[in-house]
Amino acid sequence: MKKIKIALLGCGTVGGATYKILQMNAEQIAQKTGVILEISKILVRDKERPYAVPESLLTTNYQEILDTRDIEIVVECLGGIEPASSFMLQALKAGKHVVTANKAAVAANYETLVSTSAQYHVMLRFEASVAGGIPVLDALQAPLNSNDIEEVSGIVNGTTNYILTQMIEQGQAYEEALKMAQEKGFAEADPTADVEGIDAANKLSILIALAFGEIVPIEKIATIGISKLSKEDIAFASHLGYKIKLLASAQKSKTSLQASVQPTLVPKDHMLAAVANEFNALFIHGNAVGDLLFYGKGAGGLPTASAVAGDIIEIANAIDKNAAFDSYVNKISASHLTYLGEGSNAYYLRLSVSNRPGVLAAIATTFSQHGISIESVTQEVNGDAAKMMFILNEVAREKLELALLALEKLPEVIKVACILRVMN
Amino acid sequence: MKKIKIALLGCGTVGGATYKILQMNAEQIAQKTGVILEISKILVRDKERPYAVPESLLTTNYQEILDTRDIEIVVECLGGIEPASSFMLQALKAGKHVVTANKAAVAANYETLVSTSAQYHVMLRFEASVAGGIPVLDALQAPLNSNDIEEVSGIVNGTTNYILTQMIEQGQAYEEALKMAQEKGFAEADPTADVEGIDAANKLSILIALAFGEIVPIEKIATIGISKLSKEDIAFASHLGYKIKLLASAQKSKTSLQASVQPTLVPKDHMLAAVANEFNALFIHGNAVGDLLFYGKGAGGLPTASAVAGDIIEIANAIDKNAAFDSYVNKISASHLTYLGEGSNAYYLRLSVSNRPGVLAAIATTFSQHGISIESVTQEVNGDAAKMMFILNEVAREKLELALLALEKLPEVIKVACILRVMN
Repeated sequence: MKKIKIALLGCGTVGGATYKILQMNAEQIAQKTGVILEISKILVRDKERPYAVPESLLTTNYQEILDTRDIEIVVECLGGIEPASSFMLQALKAGKHVVTANKAAVAANYETLVSTSAQYHVMLRFEASVAGGIPVLDALQAPLNSNDIEEVSGIVNGTTNYILTQMIEQGQAYEEALKMAQEKGFAEADPTADVEGIDAANKLSILIALAFGEIVPIEKIATIGISKLSKEDIAFASHLGYKIKLLASAQKSKTSLQASVQPTLVPKDHMLAAVANEFNALFIHGNAVGDLLFYGKGAGGLPTASAVAGDIIEIANAIDKNAAFDSYVNKISASHLTYLGEGSNAYYLRLSVSNRPGVLAAIATTFSQHGISIESVTQEVNGDAAKMMFILNEVAREKLELALLALEKLPEVIKVACILRVMN
Repeated sequence: MKKIKIALLGCGTVGGATYKILQMNAEQIAQKTGVILEISKILVRDKERPYAVPESLLTTNYQEILDTRDIEIVVECLGGIEPASSFMLQALKAGKHVVTANKAAVAANYETLVSTSAQYHVMLRFEASVAGGIPVLDALQAPLNSNDIEEVSGIVNGTTNYILTQMIEQGQAYEEALKMAQEKGFAEADPTADVEGIDAANKLSILIALAFGEIVPIEKIATIGISKLSKEDIAFASHLGYKIKLLASAQKSKTSLQASVQPTLVPKDHMLAAVANEFNALFIHGNAVGDLLFYGKGAGGLPTASAVAGDIIEIANAIDKNAAFDSYVNKISASHLTYLGEGSNAYYLRLSVSNRPGVLAAIATTFSQHGISIESVTQEVNGDAAKMMFILNEVAREKLELALLALEKLPEVIKVACILRVMN
């Protein structure tokens, strides 16, 4: 049986779990695939820290890994853009296949990494970088490649989904739910990258590349986190038949593409609404297959390492079969689509207004003048003031913002208190 | 760009839709994969019927396809065990790759088909045979091959799921819901293969082969359909917090395997309970990745053909890369697991009993004597008679049957009215 040697970069949560899976399931893997996978070196910063791996495997010298000819696969589990990206490029240039779980590095250097792997005829795979253990990048390849993919929308961040689930199910405020998530280990001490949507935007950028063959760097993705979300809007949304989820969404038409990461009202009977706590899910619409949903654990050592190990196996099989190497099937398109930013969506809007006759008429007239149609309106009156909650039909964000400026000038409108996207 | 020639066998729902996808998405496919796919012959029984394909492609002579050297892929869309199986074997032996959507033929001849493809160094793929457009067989390969798969449970028949959804949501009786399904085109005039679970058992047999590397022919899978299910038990199950779904389930331990197709109580907060109407879903548990769910359309022309076309692309890529050909990664295990049939499960039980003191005590004593523990019991009294609904903790089916024989001898018990599996 062919033996394939692997080096791990990093031995933290994902690196340690990858080592564990390749040990724990070694017999299964050999039996199913006909190859033996051997981790022969592990790069760490400090050999003295206690790791759950044999000390003889540890090295602090990356050059040693690059120079070891029979190491065919380098598995990057360091996280962060650098030095991870440089290490991956060095490995590819040294003729080694690369597997990574690193969404920040892949999103930041997608084209360089992919083109380098092509140039050096080696494979680059990053299944674990999006939605952890859920094999969605693989699915977006051959099995769905007969489709024109028209939408990819997902809950791709477990921390924020856990917090939102607490807010929805327990009626907690954001700060309270964040504290609980931190206590349970679902949120980091500095939760910024998760709660402000940056992590989700990295993942969406990778999904867009594989689903649509387009490069949209995260700076161009309209990104709104969940830290400003109120209990009140969660309750109103629920009353209207929706759950609020942090959705990373991209839709394509024949000529254009729109994408955003933002808290979004998802109809309660949509499968994405059933995705609770730290779970992730990806919703895909293809012009042949229709609607698909993939659900599972998007983070954590073993689920993430499951995807890393799957990529290792995919490469090992290609080596074993003497296949020509190809990172992923999809190619970045030469004919780029027009990028519309957030584009057109339905929206939920909460206004604080004075409680007097003619308020709705004035607001409805303003919307009408801006060509925006109202799907539904409900209100909650409290003495002299009232809250009005609108669901607006699909409209371009820029057009909506102009209407809001006009609304704020109406004497009846106290303020625009909340705007949230509504999933179609 | 490399051009790959394909023959279709059959031009019905799936064959016709496969032709349509390869036309409709030709540009996408060429751009994403770098190969051009050309359907160059279509086998039909009768050229005179009107087909939505150019007449010049039609042939009634299979030998002509076998003899055409530059046809590299044969796509079987005939359905039924024969002549489909013989045609596939002939194609494999002629050195052609084979794609099929035919669960009956694959389940009936799994080992012969797979070993013939290996012997002739060609690929055999059958993604569309299970759960239509949902790419679950592909997922069970490389991306999840680092896992020891411990469970595969799914809603793999759209007809029965549509009928059950009507029964659950509209309170319809089975006959009424079946009639509606037939009117809407979700059930055939003779619905036997669907409603009696035979279609689902074929799919489960294929899933078991790919997930566990074991061959369990459908004759050995305990199979119960939905035609005997009453409105009453659906309502009681709902009251107890469950939805009844026709589940195809297989669980593995270190040394054994159990499998069945039967109406099963699924907890309402499980993702499978949210799968409504004609949709399918597969739940997978791996020892690294944890719980996964794949959801989508399990039948219909375009969704099924999406998977067929995905398999064609997978093979075309292997041809393009000069890879050694391998049908699927997983190998059938040499060391077979003990097959336990239906095995051990939790069960729902409805008894008709006399309404008098001491009934529960007598029943509970009988269960206890048979080593069966009761999770919960509820009752509905109607004059002299009562209905008692039990949820029993996990027990082997044989042991449960012995207890039921003893229960039926109790003077208090009128009859055992219903037994259904409960998902753990």
